[in-house]
Amino acid sequence: MQTDAYRVRPGHRVRLDDWDTRDDGGQNRQDAETKTGQLQARMQNLQERLYAEGKRSLLIVLQARDAGGKDGTVKHVMGGFNPLGTSVTPFKVPSAVERAHDFLWRVHALAPAAGHVAIFNRSHYEDVLVPRVHRLLPEEVLDRRLEHIRAFEALLADAQTVQLKFYLHISKEEQRKRLQERLDRPDKHWKFDPKDLEERALWERYTETYEQVLSRTSEEYAPWYVIPADRKWFRNHLITRILVETLEGLDLRYPPAPEGLEHVRIE
Amino acid sequence: MQTDAYRVRPGHRVRLDDWDTRDDGGQNRQDAETKTGQLQARMQNLQERLYAEGKRSLLIVLQARDAGGKDGTVKHVMGGFNPLGTSVTPFKVPSAVERAHDFLWRVHALAPAAGHVAIFNRSHYEDVLVPRVHRLLPEEVLDRRLEHIRAFEALLADAQTVQLKFYLHISKEEQRKRLQERLDRPDKHWKFDPKDLEERALWERYTETYEQVLSRTSEEYAPWYVIPADRKWFRNHLITRILVETLEGLDLRYPPAPEGLEHVRIE
Repeated sequence: MQTDAYRVRPGHRVRLDDWDTRDDGGQNRQDAETKTGQLQARMQNLQERLYAEGKRSLLIVLQARDAGGKDGTVKHVMGGFNPLGTSVTPFKVPSAVERAHDFLWRVHALAPAAGHVAIFNRSHYEDVLVPRVHRLLPEEVLDRRLEHIRAFEALLADAQTVQLKFYLHISKEEQRKRLQERLDRPDKHWKFDPKDLEERALWERYTETYEQVLSRTSEEYAPWYVIPADRKWFRNHLITRILVETLEGLDLRYPPAPEGLEHVRIE
Repeated sequence: MQTDAYRVRPGHRVRLDDWDTRDDGGQNRQDAETKTGQLQARMQNLQERLYAEGKRSLLIVLQARDAGGKDGTVKHVMGGFNPLGTSVTPFKVPSAVERAHDFLWRVHALAPAAGHVAIFNRSHYEDVLVPRVHRLLPEEVLDRRLEHIRAFEALLADAQTVQLKFYLHISKEEQRKRLQERLDRPDKHWKFDPKDLEERALWERYTETYEQVLSRTSEEYAPWYVIPADRKWFRNHLITRILVETLEGLDLRYPPAPEGLEHVRIE
């Protein structure tokens, strides 16, 4: 299985229907789950090197429709990181203080420091997606915001922040099942928000808008991946794999011992 | 006197020698000082409207060589603002935490909220100027940073942050006098830093680098002004005038009374 197949090439015009939400990459579930466990151990080791090196950092952006599996991904994939050096930020509706600034202000403050991993559960992309779907964002403002996002991500890239952006791709039927489950299971009631139904009614508009955004903001330095997410085990497997491959591509090494260390004697 | 004459037009190739550091705009000192006092009262009133409106904000960037008059400008000009809604941030050498992020990270966090005025005493421009003068920044990194700065300032502009950038322009002889004064006057010793002499030795390189930076980052939405600053009274007068003219140009109005207010009875 090539993870490359799930990456949006810069300039590529995304049509979400081209990606099968039930795709399993030709994997068998049990094998994939075993492999995911092994990859997670490697992932934690790679993260330790990233931290020790203290030069580069990793930013992971998670975007999805409601019930798309963002929280599950954080739990089952990002849970594999050492919490030392890892931050997870869920971005909610902006507060009054946040709204009093440009839309990247609150996001920029939480960008990962060198050596760290930051996970954005929702992100600056919400400020494009949601108002656009609700017809609150004229074309030219959308264009400007996408330009600002590209410039912002280029800035992070120049500061050696490696960026991975995952769109968790579920079908409308899968969303129906998951929302229904939240209604049916008392231990899931807390996750049900009646507003999710209003957003669900705008399914097509979300599709269009995601397509537009993914097509226009996938760069070599900050690529989007479309992750088939109807099968949770495959979603977890694929994301873990992309994380490991990306970190391995960085050729992370523990820093050399300080000079003269061999002469140090503890007395 | 036209304040426009001191603004760097976008795309204009700046030569600092074209601006006389002793220029007094044809003003007489006593008249100018009286006028500055009157303008400051207007400035505070305009700021109150900016605050009441709560939509737009003002960012003032102060850059200068050592002893160029940044602290004096903050005291004598910005001192006229109501501290409620005003913040002054002196940017020092970046801390370890700050260096672990991109160079705009610490600056972005301190951008003014709607209704507020933020004054940057030194700024993100230091991260271009100082390393460039010290030959630590290759041409292509300089280019990237200037691009990032332009994109960042465009982002602020889109969020309705009005931006004014002042380069306080002093002569080499004036700097000599001011540094000497710091040596001679016990009440000014604390301001003397021997490192200032090392920077002074790089006078020509600073000139070149400022010229390059001013030429490439003066935009309609974030213009640079070259402020003749050998005469402190003229510097204060000119900056106050630009502030007042800019704020007046915004047509700031107190927000209308909430509807139905006329029926409210305090009982």
